[in-house]
Amino acid sequence: MANSASGDSVTERIVRVLETFSTERTVQTAAEIGRRAGLPSSTAHRMVAELVASGLLERDGARRVRLGMRLWELAGRGSRALRLRQAALPWMERVQARVREHTQLAVLEHGEALFLERLSSPTAGANITRIAGRLPLHASSSGLVLLAFAPDDEREAVLAAPLLPVSAETILEPQALRARLAAIRRDGFVVAEGSIEQVSTGVAVPVRDGRGPVIAALSVVLPREAPTAGAVEELRAAAAGISAALGSAGR
Amino acid sequence: MANSASGDSVTERIVRVLETFSTERTVQTAAEIGRRAGLPSSTAHRMVAELVASGLLERDGARRVRLGMRLWELAGRGSRALRLRQAALPWMERVQARVREHTQLAVLEHGEALFLERLSSPTAGANITRIAGRLPLHASSSGLVLLAFAPDDEREAVLAAPLLPVSAETILEPQALRARLAAIRRDGFVVAEGSIEQVSTGVAVPVRDGRGPVIAALSVVLPREAPTAGAVEELRAAAAGISAALGSAGR
Repeated sequence: MANSASGDSVTERIVRVLETFSTERTVQTAAEIGRRAGLPSSTAHRMVAELVASGLLERDGARRVRLGMRLWELAGRGSRALRLRQAALPWMERVQARVREHTQLAVLEHGEALFLERLSSPTAGANITRIAGRLPLHASSSGLVLLAFAPDDEREAVLAAPLLPVSAETILEPQALRARLAAIRRDGFVVAEGSIEQVSTGVAVPVRDGRGPVIAALSVVLPREAPTAGAVEELRAAAAGISAALGSAGR
Repeated sequence: MANSASGDSVTERIVRVLETFSTERTVQTAAEIGRRAGLPSSTAHRMVAELVASGLLERDGARRVRLGMRLWELAGRGSRALRLRQAALPWMERVQARVREHTQLAVLEHGEALFLERLSSPTAGANITRIAGRLPLHASSSGLVLLAFAPDDEREAVLAAPLLPVSAETILEPQALRARLAAIRRDGFVVAEGSIEQVSTGVAVPVRDGRGPVIAALSVVLPREAPTAGAVEELRAAAAGISAALGSAGR
Protein backbone atom coordinates (compact mmCIF):
# COMPACT_ATOMS: atom_id res chain seq x y z
CA MET A 1 0.00 0.00 0.00
CA ALA A 2 1.21 3.46 -0.82
CA ASN A 3 2.58 5.44 2.05
CA SER A 4 2.48 9.20 2.28
CA ALA A 5 5.56 11.42 2.60
CA SER A 6 5.18 11.23 6.39
CA GLY A 7 5.34 7.42 6.23
CA ASP A 8 1.85 6.60 7.49
CA SER A 9 -0.14 4.06 5.51
CA VAL A 10 -3.41 4.79 3.72
CA THR A 11 -5.09 2.59 6.31
CA GLU A 12 -3.80 4.78 9.12
CA ARG A 13 -4.98 7.90 7.32
CA ILE A 14 -8.44 6.41 6.84
CA VAL A 15 -8.59 5.66 10.57
CA ARG A 16 -7.51 9.25 11.28
CA VAL A 17 -10.32 10.54 9.07
CA LEU A 18 -12.90 8.31 10.79
CA GLU A 19 -11.57 9.37 14.20
CA THR A 20 -12.49 13.01 13.53
CA PHE A 21 -16.16 12.03 13.98
CA SER A 22 -17.62 11.85 17.47
CA THR A 23 -20.97 11.77 19.20
CA GLU A 24 -20.78 15.58 19.38
CA ARG A 25 -19.46 16.03 15.83
CA THR A 26 -21.46 13.84 13.48
CA VAL A 27 -21.32 16.00 10.33
CA GLN A 28 -18.26 17.72 8.84
CA THR A 29 -16.92 19.19 5.59
CA ALA A 30 -13.88 17.66 3.90
CA ALA A 31 -11.89 20.77 4.83
CA GLU A 32 -12.78 20.34 8.54
CA ILE A 33 -11.87 16.66 8.38
CA GLY A 34 -8.52 17.49 6.79
CA ARG A 35 -7.69 20.06 9.45
CA ARG A 36 -8.65 17.76 12.33
CA ALA A 37 -6.88 14.72 10.83
CA GLY A 38 -3.76 16.72 9.97
CA LEU A 39 -4.05 16.03 6.24
CA PRO A 40 -3.44 18.40 3.30
CA SER A 41 -6.72 19.76 1.92
CA SER A 42 -6.35 18.03 -1.47
CA THR A 43 -5.66 14.69 0.25
CA ALA A 44 -8.67 15.15 2.53
CA HIS A 45 -11.00 15.94 -0.37
CA ARG A 46 -9.77 12.90 -2.35
CA MET A 47 -10.07 10.57 0.67
CA VAL A 48 -13.56 11.83 1.50
CA ALA A 49 -14.66 11.24 -2.12
CA GLU A 50 -13.30 7.68 -1.98
CA LEU A 51 -14.85 6.99 1.41
CA VAL A 52 -18.22 8.24 0.12
CA ALA A 53 -17.89 6.03 -2.99
CA SER A 54 -17.24 3.01 -0.77
CA GLY A 55 -20.11 3.85 1.61
CA LEU A 56 -17.93 4.33 4.71
CA LEU A 57 -19.01 8.00 4.66
CA GLU A 58 -22.32 9.42 3.42
CA ARG A 59 -23.14 12.84 1.97
CA ASP A 60 -25.27 15.00 4.23
CA GLY A 61 -26.22 17.94 2.04
CA ALA A 62 -23.98 19.44 -0.61
CA ARG A 63 -20.65 19.79 1.20
CA ARG A 64 -20.89 17.84 4.42
CA VAL A 65 -20.46 14.15 5.18
CA ARG A 66 -21.23 11.81 8.07
CA LEU A 67 -20.31 8.22 8.96
CA GLY A 68 -22.04 5.74 6.66
CA MET A 69 -24.42 2.95 7.56
CA ARG A 70 -22.07 0.71 5.56
CA LEU A 71 -19.33 1.27 8.14
CA TRP A 72 -21.68 0.28 10.93
CA GLU A 73 -22.78 -2.77 8.96
CA LEU A 74 -19.22 -3.94 8.26
CA ALA A 75 -18.27 -3.44 11.90
CA GLY A 76 -21.31 -5.36 13.10
CA ARG A 77 -20.82 -8.45 10.99
CA GLY A 78 -19.01 -11.14 12.83
CA SER A 79 -17.53 -8.83 15.40
CA ARG A 80 -16.69 -9.83 18.93
CA ALA A 81 -18.53 -6.71 20.10
CA LEU A 82 -21.81 -7.84 18.59
CA ARG A 83 -21.51 -11.44 19.81
CA LEU A 84 -20.83 -10.29 23.36
CA ARG A 85 -23.52 -7.63 23.30
CA GLN A 86 -26.13 -10.07 21.96
CA ALA A 87 -25.38 -12.57 24.71
CA ALA A 88 -25.45 -9.81 27.32
CA LEU A 89 -28.50 -7.79 26.29
CA PRO A 90 -31.26 -10.02 27.75
CA TRP A 91 -29.37 -10.16 31.06
CA MET A 92 -28.69 -6.43 31.02
CA GLU A 93 -32.42 -5.88 30.54
CA ARG A 94 -33.10 -8.02 33.59
CA VAL A 95 -30.65 -6.02 35.70
CA GLN A 96 -32.08 -2.78 34.35
CA ALA A 97 -35.67 -3.85 35.12
CA ARG A 98 -34.69 -4.43 38.75
CA VAL A 99 -32.07 -1.76 39.47
CA ARG A 100 -33.64 0.93 37.24
CA GLU A 101 -30.64 3.26 36.98
CA HIS A 102 -27.89 2.63 34.39
CA THR A 103 -26.67 -0.82 33.31
CA GLN A 104 -23.47 -1.04 31.24
CA LEU A 105 -21.21 -3.49 29.47
CA ALA A 106 -17.52 -2.67 28.91
CA VAL A 107 -14.42 -4.36 27.49
CA LEU A 108 -10.70 -3.70 27.86
CA GLU A 109 -9.51 -2.02 24.65
CA HIS A 110 -5.99 -0.59 24.35
CA GLY A 111 -5.63 0.39 27.99
CA GLU A 112 -9.11 1.84 28.51
CA ALA A 113 -12.63 0.65 29.28
CA LEU A 114 -14.67 0.75 26.04
CA PHE A 115 -18.44 0.71 26.62
CA LEU A 116 -20.36 -1.59 24.25
CA GLU A 117 -23.84 -1.05 25.63
CA ARG A 118 -25.75 1.06 28.10
CA LEU A 119 -29.37 0.87 29.22
CA SER A 120 -30.66 3.83 31.19
CA SER A 121 -33.86 4.65 32.99
CA PRO A 122 -35.30 8.05 31.94
CA THR A 123 -35.32 9.03 35.64
CA ALA A 124 -31.82 7.75 36.47
CA GLY A 125 -29.09 9.88 38.01
CA ALA A 126 -25.81 11.21 36.62
CA ASN A 127 -23.68 9.06 34.29
CA ILE A 128 -21.07 10.27 31.82
CA THR A 129 -20.67 6.93 30.04
CA ARG A 130 -21.49 6.77 26.33
CA ILE A 131 -21.87 3.77 24.07
CA ALA A 132 -18.66 3.48 22.02
CA GLY A 133 -17.14 5.86 24.58
CA ARG A 134 -14.17 5.20 26.86
CA LEU A 135 -13.21 5.72 30.51
CA PRO A 136 -9.86 5.25 32.29
CA LEU A 137 -9.31 1.80 33.80
CA HIS A 138 -8.22 3.04 37.23
CA ALA A 139 -11.24 5.32 37.76
CA SER A 140 -14.42 3.59 36.52
CA SER A 141 -15.87 0.57 38.30
CA SER A 142 -15.90 -1.33 35.00
CA GLY A 143 -12.30 -0.33 34.36
CA LEU A 144 -11.20 -1.49 37.82
CA VAL A 145 -12.72 -4.93 37.21
CA LEU A 146 -11.15 -5.17 33.74
CA LEU A 147 -7.80 -4.09 35.16
CA ALA A 148 -7.99 -6.53 38.07
CA PHE A 149 -8.45 -9.47 35.69
CA ALA A 150 -6.22 -8.17 32.86
CA PRO A 151 -3.07 -10.02 31.74
CA ASP A 152 -0.16 -9.10 34.04
CA ASP A 153 1.70 -7.08 31.41
CA GLU A 154 -1.32 -4.90 30.62
CA ARG A 155 -1.98 -4.28 34.33
CA GLU A 156 1.65 -3.38 35.02
CA ALA A 157 1.66 -0.97 32.07
CA VAL A 158 -1.28 0.91 33.58
CA LEU A 159 0.30 0.90 37.05
CA ALA A 160 3.58 2.22 35.63
CA ALA A 161 1.96 5.14 33.78
CA PRO A 162 0.77 8.32 35.54
CA LEU A 163 -2.69 7.81 37.09
CA LEU A 164 -4.71 10.91 36.22
CA PRO A 165 -7.59 12.16 38.39
CA VAL A 166 -11.14 12.01 36.99
CA SER A 167 -12.79 13.14 40.23
CA ALA A 168 -11.39 14.22 43.61
CA GLU A 169 -11.77 10.60 44.78
CA THR A 170 -10.02 8.74 41.94
CA ILE A 171 -7.25 6.46 43.26
CA LEU A 172 -3.92 7.96 42.15
CA GLU A 173 -1.43 5.92 44.21
CA PRO A 174 -0.11 2.78 42.46
CA GLN A 175 0.18 0.85 45.75
CA ALA A 176 -3.38 1.75 46.78
CA LEU A 177 -4.61 0.75 43.31
CA ARG A 178 -2.70 -2.55 43.51
CA ALA A 179 -4.38 -3.36 46.83
CA ARG A 180 -7.76 -2.45 45.40
CA LEU A 181 -7.25 -4.75 42.41
CA ALA A 182 -6.25 -7.64 44.67
CA ALA A 183 -9.45 -7.10 46.66
CA ILE A 184 -11.50 -7.15 43.44
CA ARG A 185 -9.92 -10.47 42.39
CA ARG A 186 -10.70 -11.87 45.85
CA ASP A 187 -14.28 -10.53 46.13
CA GLY A 188 -15.35 -10.79 42.49
CA PHE A 189 -16.91 -7.31 42.45
CA VAL A 190 -16.13 -3.67 43.12
CA VAL A 191 -18.09 -0.79 44.63
CA ALA A 192 -16.41 2.43 43.44
CA GLU A 193 -17.81 5.48 45.19
CA GLY A 194 -17.31 8.84 43.55
CA SER A 195 -14.26 7.86 41.51
CA ILE A 196 -15.79 9.15 38.24
CA GLU A 197 -18.46 11.56 39.48
CA GLN A 198 -18.78 12.43 43.14
CA VAL A 199 -22.57 12.05 43.07
CA SER A 200 -22.44 8.46 41.78
CA THR A 201 -21.30 4.99 42.79
CA GLY A 202 -20.31 2.39 40.22
CA VAL A 203 -20.78 -1.31 40.98
CA ALA A 204 -19.15 -3.81 38.61
CA VAL A 205 -18.52 -7.54 38.24
CA PRO A 206 -16.40 -9.56 35.78
CA VAL A 207 -17.96 -11.51 32.90
CA ARG A 208 -16.14 -14.63 31.75
CA ASP A 209 -16.18 -16.14 28.25
CA GLY A 210 -17.87 -19.39 29.19
CA ARG A 211 -15.45 -20.89 31.72
CA GLY A 212 -12.55 -19.00 30.20
CA PRO A 213 -10.93 -15.63 30.88
CA VAL A 214 -12.68 -12.42 31.91
CA ILE A 215 -13.69 -10.62 28.71
CA ALA A 216 -15.99 -7.87 29.96
CA ALA A 217 -17.28 -5.96 32.97
CA LEU A 218 -20.97 -5.58 33.75
CA SER A 219 -21.82 -2.57 35.87
CA VAL A 220 -24.54 -0.35 37.25
CA VAL A 221 -24.21 3.31 38.16
CA LEU A 222 -26.25 4.31 41.22
CA PRO A 223 -26.83 7.56 43.07
CA ARG A 224 -24.14 7.77 45.74
CA GLU A 225 -26.50 7.29 48.68
CA ALA A 226 -28.19 4.17 47.24
CA PRO A 227 -27.63 0.72 48.80
CA THR A 228 -25.42 -1.54 46.68
CA ALA A 229 -25.91 -5.08 47.99
CA GLY A 230 -28.91 -5.84 45.78
CA ALA A 231 -27.10 -4.53 42.72
CA VAL A 232 -24.10 -6.80 43.40
CA GLU A 233 -26.36 -9.84 43.54
CA GLU A 234 -28.23 -8.89 40.35
CA LEU A 235 -24.96 -8.26 38.52
CA ARG A 236 -23.48 -11.57 39.62
CA ALA A 237 -26.51 -13.52 38.47
CA ALA A 238 -26.48 -11.69 35.13
CA ALA A 239 -22.74 -12.21 34.62
CA ALA A 240 -23.19 -15.94 35.25
CA GLY A 241 -26.03 -16.00 32.72
CA ILE A 242 -23.97 -14.17 30.09
CA SER A 243 -21.00 -16.50 30.62
CA ALA A 244 -23.24 -19.52 30.21
CA ALA A 245 -24.74 -18.07 27.01
CA LEU A 246 -21.27 -17.37 25.59
CA GLY A 247 -20.03 -20.82 26.57
CA SER A 248 -22.90 -22.60 24.83
CA ALA A 249 -23.05 -20.43 21.72
CA GLY A 250 -19.55 -21.21 20.43
CA ARG A 251 -17.89 -18.51 18.37
CA MET B 1 -4.61 7.82 -3.06
CA ALA B 2 -2.76 5.10 -4.88
CA ASN B 3 -4.82 2.90 -7.11
CA SER B 4 -4.01 -0.69 -7.97
CA ALA B 5 -3.40 -1.96 -11.47
CA SER B 6 -7.11 -2.83 -11.69
CA GLY B 7 -8.02 0.78 -10.87
CA ASP B 8 -9.75 0.26 -7.52
CA SER B 9 -8.74 2.56 -4.68
CA VAL B 10 -7.11 1.45 -1.44
CA THR B 11 -10.35 2.40 0.29
CA GLU B 12 -12.32 0.03 -1.93
CA ARG B 13 -9.83 -2.75 -1.26
CA ILE B 14 -10.11 -2.20 2.50
CA VAL B 15 -13.88 -2.46 2.22
CA ARG B 16 -13.47 -5.66 0.21
CA VAL B 17 -11.24 -7.10 2.95
CA LEU B 18 -13.73 -6.16 5.68
CA GLU B 19 -16.58 -7.61 3.60
CA THR B 20 -15.02 -11.09 3.73
CA PHE B 21 -16.04 -11.30 7.40
CA SER B 22 -19.56 -12.40 8.28
CA THR B 23 -21.53 -13.68 11.22
CA GLU B 24 -20.65 -17.21 10.08
CA ARG B 25 -16.99 -16.39 9.30
CA THR B 26 -15.54 -14.33 12.11
CA VAL B 27 -11.93 -15.53 11.96
CA GLN B 28 -9.75 -15.91 8.84
CA THR B 29 -6.12 -16.12 7.73
CA ALA B 30 -4.65 -13.44 5.47
CA ALA B 31 -4.50 -16.02 2.66
CA GLU B 32 -8.23 -16.78 3.01
CA ILE B 33 -9.04 -13.07 3.05
CA GLY B 34 -6.97 -12.51 -0.09
CA ARG B 35 -8.73 -15.33 -1.92
CA ARG B 36 -12.20 -14.16 -0.91
CA ALA B 37 -11.45 -10.49 -1.64
CA GLY B 38 -9.81 -11.27 -4.98
CA LEU B 39 -6.46 -9.79 -3.92
CA PRO B 40 -2.94 -11.11 -4.61
CA SER B 41 -1.54 -12.94 -1.60
CA SER B 42 1.25 -10.40 -0.99
CA THR B 43 -1.26 -7.53 -1.11
CA ALA B 44 -3.58 -9.34 1.29
CA HIS B 45 -0.79 -9.99 3.79
CA ARG B 46 0.37 -6.36 3.67
CA MET B 47 -3.18 -5.01 4.04
CA VAL B 48 -3.94 -7.35 6.94
CA ALA B 49 -0.76 -6.22 8.71
CA GLU B 50 -1.74 -2.58 8.25
CA LEU B 51 -5.31 -3.18 9.36
CA VAL B 52 -4.03 -4.96 12.49
CA ALA B 53 -1.63 -2.06 13.20
CA SER B 54 -4.53 0.39 12.97
CA GLY B 55 -6.84 -1.77 15.13
CA LEU B 56 -9.47 -2.38 12.44
CA LEU B 57 -8.50 -6.07 12.58
CA GLU B 58 -7.22 -8.00 15.62
CA ARG B 59 -4.96 -11.05 15.81
CA ASP B 60 -6.71 -14.22 16.96
CA GLY B 61 -3.92 -16.67 17.52
CA ALA B 62 -0.77 -16.80 15.43
CA ARG B 63 -2.06 -16.63 11.87
CA ARG B 64 -5.71 -15.68 12.04
CA VAL B 65 -7.42 -12.31 12.41
CA ARG B 66 -10.91 -11.05 13.25
CA LEU B 67 -12.66 -7.68 13.10
CA GLY B 68 -11.30 -5.30 15.71
CA MET B 69 -13.16 -3.59 18.54
CA ARG B 70 -11.66 -0.37 17.14
CA LEU B 71 -13.72 -0.75 13.96
CA TRP B 72 -16.87 -1.15 16.01
CA GLU B 73 -15.94 1.86 18.12
CA LEU B 74 -15.27 4.11 15.11
CA ALA B 75 -18.52 2.99 13.49
CA GLY B 76 -20.47 3.64 16.66
CA ARG B 77 -19.27 7.18 17.28
CA GLY B 78 -21.65 9.71 15.94
CA SER B 79 -23.31 7.35 13.54
CA ARG B 80 -26.88 7.65 12.43
CA ALA B 81 -27.28 3.95 13.21
CA LEU B 82 -26.44 4.44 16.88
CA ARG B 83 -28.60 7.54 17.32
CA LEU B 84 -31.61 5.81 15.80
CA ARG B 85 -31.04 2.59 17.70
CA GLN B 86 -30.69 4.42 21.02
CA ALA B 87 -33.94 6.28 20.49
CA ALA B 88 -35.66 3.06 19.44
CA LEU B 89 -34.39 0.57 22.02
CA PRO B 90 -36.66 1.50 24.96
CA TRP B 91 -39.69 1.35 22.67
CA MET B 92 -38.53 -1.90 21.09
CA GLU B 93 -38.25 -3.37 24.58
CA ARG B 94 -41.84 -2.33 25.29
CA VAL B 95 -43.06 -3.99 22.09
CA GLN B 96 -40.98 -7.09 22.86
CA ALA B 97 -42.34 -7.30 26.42
CA ARG B 98 -45.88 -7.37 25.04
CA VAL B 99 -45.58 -9.28 21.76
CA ARG B 100 -42.84 -11.67 22.94
CA GLU B 101 -41.66 -12.91 19.53
CA HIS B 102 -39.13 -10.90 17.48
CA THR B 103 -38.96 -7.08 17.37
CA GLN B 104 -36.75 -5.46 14.71
CA LEU B 105 -35.56 -2.10 13.46
CA ALA B 106 -34.46 -1.65 9.82
CA VAL B 107 -33.33 1.15 7.52
CA LEU B 108 -33.16 1.52 3.73
CA GLU B 109 -29.52 1.08 2.68
CA HIS B 110 -28.51 0.83 -0.98
CA GLY B 111 -31.69 -0.86 -2.15
CA GLU B 112 -32.07 -3.32 0.72
CA ALA B 113 -33.46 -3.42 4.25
CA LEU B 114 -30.52 -3.30 6.71
CA PHE B 115 -31.41 -4.48 10.22
CA LEU B 116 -29.98 -2.33 13.02
CA GLU B 117 -31.43 -4.17 15.98
CA ARG B 118 -33.38 -7.27 16.86
CA LEU B 119 -34.81 -8.42 20.18
CA SER B 120 -35.98 -12.02 20.37
CA SER B 121 -37.72 -14.15 22.92
CA PRO B 122 -35.90 -17.44 23.59
CA THR B 123 -39.16 -19.25 22.78
CA ALA B 124 -40.00 -17.28 19.63
CA GLY B 125 -40.65 -18.85 16.23
CA ALA B 126 -38.65 -18.80 13.00
CA ASN B 127 -36.83 -15.62 11.88
CA ILE B 128 -33.92 -15.40 9.48
CA THR B 129 -33.12 -11.75 10.24
CA ARG B 130 -29.70 -10.91 11.65
CA ILE B 131 -28.43 -7.69 13.15
CA ALA B 132 -26.28 -5.99 10.50
CA GLY B 133 -27.90 -8.36 8.00
CA ARG B 134 -30.01 -7.47 4.98
CA LEU B 135 -33.26 -8.57 3.33
CA PRO B 136 -34.79 -7.63 -0.05
CA LEU B 137 -37.15 -4.65 0.05
CA HIS B 138 -39.98 -6.34 -1.85
CA ALA B 139 -40.11 -9.43 0.37
CA SER B 140 -39.70 -8.45 4.03
CA SER B 141 -42.39 -6.50 5.90
CA SER B 142 -39.75 -3.92 6.95
CA GLY B 143 -38.55 -3.65 3.37
CA LEU B 144 -42.09 -3.14 2.03
CA VAL B 145 -42.60 -0.24 4.46
CA LEU B 146 -39.21 1.29 3.58
CA LEU B 147 -39.97 0.91 -0.12
CA ALA B 148 -43.47 2.39 0.20
CA PHE B 149 -42.05 5.56 1.77
CA ALA B 150 -38.78 5.70 -0.21
CA PRO B 151 -37.97 8.58 -2.59
CA ASP B 152 -39.66 8.01 -5.98
CA ASP B 153 -36.41 7.32 -7.83
CA GLU B 154 -35.31 4.64 -5.36
CA ARG B 155 -38.73 2.97 -5.49
CA GLU B 156 -38.82 3.00 -9.29
CA ALA B 157 -35.32 1.50 -9.44
CA VAL B 158 -36.49 -1.47 -7.34
CA LEU B 159 -39.67 -1.86 -9.41
CA ALA B 160 -37.67 -1.78 -12.65
CA ALA B 161 -35.22 -4.50 -11.55
CA PRO B 162 -36.10 -8.23 -11.50
CA LEU B 163 -38.03 -9.13 -8.29
CA LEU B 164 -36.51 -12.35 -7.03
CA PRO B 165 -38.47 -14.88 -4.94
CA VAL B 166 -37.48 -15.41 -1.29
CA SER B 167 -40.40 -17.74 -0.53
CA ALA B 168 -43.17 -19.16 -2.70
CA GLU B 169 -45.36 -16.22 -1.61
CA THR B 170 -43.04 -13.29 -2.35
CA ILE B 171 -44.70 -10.70 -4.63
CA LEU B 172 -42.92 -10.86 -8.00
CA GLU B 173 -45.24 -8.78 -10.21
CA PRO B 174 -44.33 -5.05 -10.38
CA GLN B 175 -47.99 -3.99 -10.70
CA ALA B 176 -49.04 -6.09 -7.70
CA LEU B 177 -46.12 -4.66 -5.72
CA ARG B 178 -47.06 -1.11 -6.73
CA ALA B 179 -50.62 -1.65 -5.46
CA ARG B 180 -49.28 -3.13 -2.24
CA LEU B 181 -47.03 -0.12 -1.65
CA ALA B 182 -49.92 2.29 -2.25
CA ALA B 183 -51.95 0.39 0.34
CA ILE B 184 -49.07 0.63 2.84
CA ARG B 185 -48.86 4.42 2.34
CA ARG B 186 -52.63 4.63 2.87
CA ASP B 187 -52.82 2.29 5.90
CA GLY B 188 -49.52 3.14 7.59
CA PHE B 189 -48.65 -0.52 8.19
CA VAL B 190 -48.20 -3.84 6.43
CA VAL B 191 -49.00 -7.44 7.34
CA ALA B 192 -46.81 -9.64 5.12
CA GLU B 193 -47.74 -13.31 5.41
CA GLY B 194 -45.21 -15.87 4.33
CA SER B 195 -43.25 -13.60 2.01
CA ILE B 196 -39.90 -14.41 3.67
CA GLU B 197 -40.64 -17.71 5.41
CA GLN B 198 -43.91 -19.52 4.88
CA VAL B 199 -44.31 -20.24 8.60
CA SER B 200 -44.07 -16.55 9.61
CA THR B 201 -45.89 -13.25 9.24
CA GLY B 202 -44.06 -9.93 9.36
CA VAL B 203 -45.89 -6.83 10.62
CA ALA B 204 -44.18 -3.47 10.07
CA VAL B 205 -44.85 0.26 10.48
CA PRO B 206 -42.88 3.35 9.36
CA VAL B 207 -40.79 5.40 11.81
CA ARG B 208 -40.42 9.13 11.05
CA ASP B 209 -37.51 11.36 12.04
CA GLY B 210 -39.46 13.66 14.32
CA ARG B 211 -42.10 15.12 12.00
CA GLY B 212 -39.84 14.60 8.98
CA PRO B 213 -39.42 11.76 6.49
CA VAL B 214 -39.65 8.03 7.18
CA ILE B 215 -36.17 6.84 8.20
CA ALA B 216 -36.81 3.33 9.50
CA ALA B 217 -39.24 0.45 9.76
CA LEU B 218 -40.21 -1.14 13.06
CA SER B 219 -41.46 -4.71 12.77
CA VAL B 220 -42.39 -7.89 14.57
CA VAL B 221 -42.20 -11.40 13.20
CA LEU B 222 -45.03 -13.66 14.37
CA PRO B 223 -45.94 -17.29 13.80
CA ARG B 224 -48.19 -17.37 10.75
CA GLU B 225 -51.33 -18.33 12.63
CA ALA B 226 -50.99 -15.58 15.28
CA PRO B 227 -53.41 -12.61 15.37
CA THR B 228 -51.80 -9.35 14.17
CA ALA B 229 -54.10 -6.54 15.33
CA GLY B 230 -52.46 -6.15 18.74
CA ALA B 231 -49.01 -6.08 17.18
CA VAL B 232 -50.03 -3.30 14.77
CA GLU B 233 -51.23 -1.16 17.68
CA GLU B 234 -48.08 -1.80 19.73
CA LEU B 235 -45.85 -0.99 16.76
CA ARG B 236 -47.74 2.24 15.99
CA ALA B 237 -47.43 3.45 19.57
CA ALA B 238 -43.74 2.59 19.63
CA ALA B 239 -43.07 4.27 16.26
CA ALA B 240 -44.74 7.44 17.54
CA GLY B 241 -42.59 7.30 20.67
CA ILE B 242 -39.39 6.84 18.67
CA SER B 243 -40.29 9.73 16.33
CA ALA B 244 -40.94 11.99 19.30
CA ALA B 245 -37.61 11.01 20.89
CA LEU B 246 -35.75 11.70 17.64
CA GLY B 247 -37.54 15.02 17.18
CA SER B 248 -36.62 16.27 20.64
CA ALA B 249 -33.04 14.98 20.70
CA GLY B 250 -31.74 17.04 17.77
CA ARG B 251 -28.85 15.51 15.89
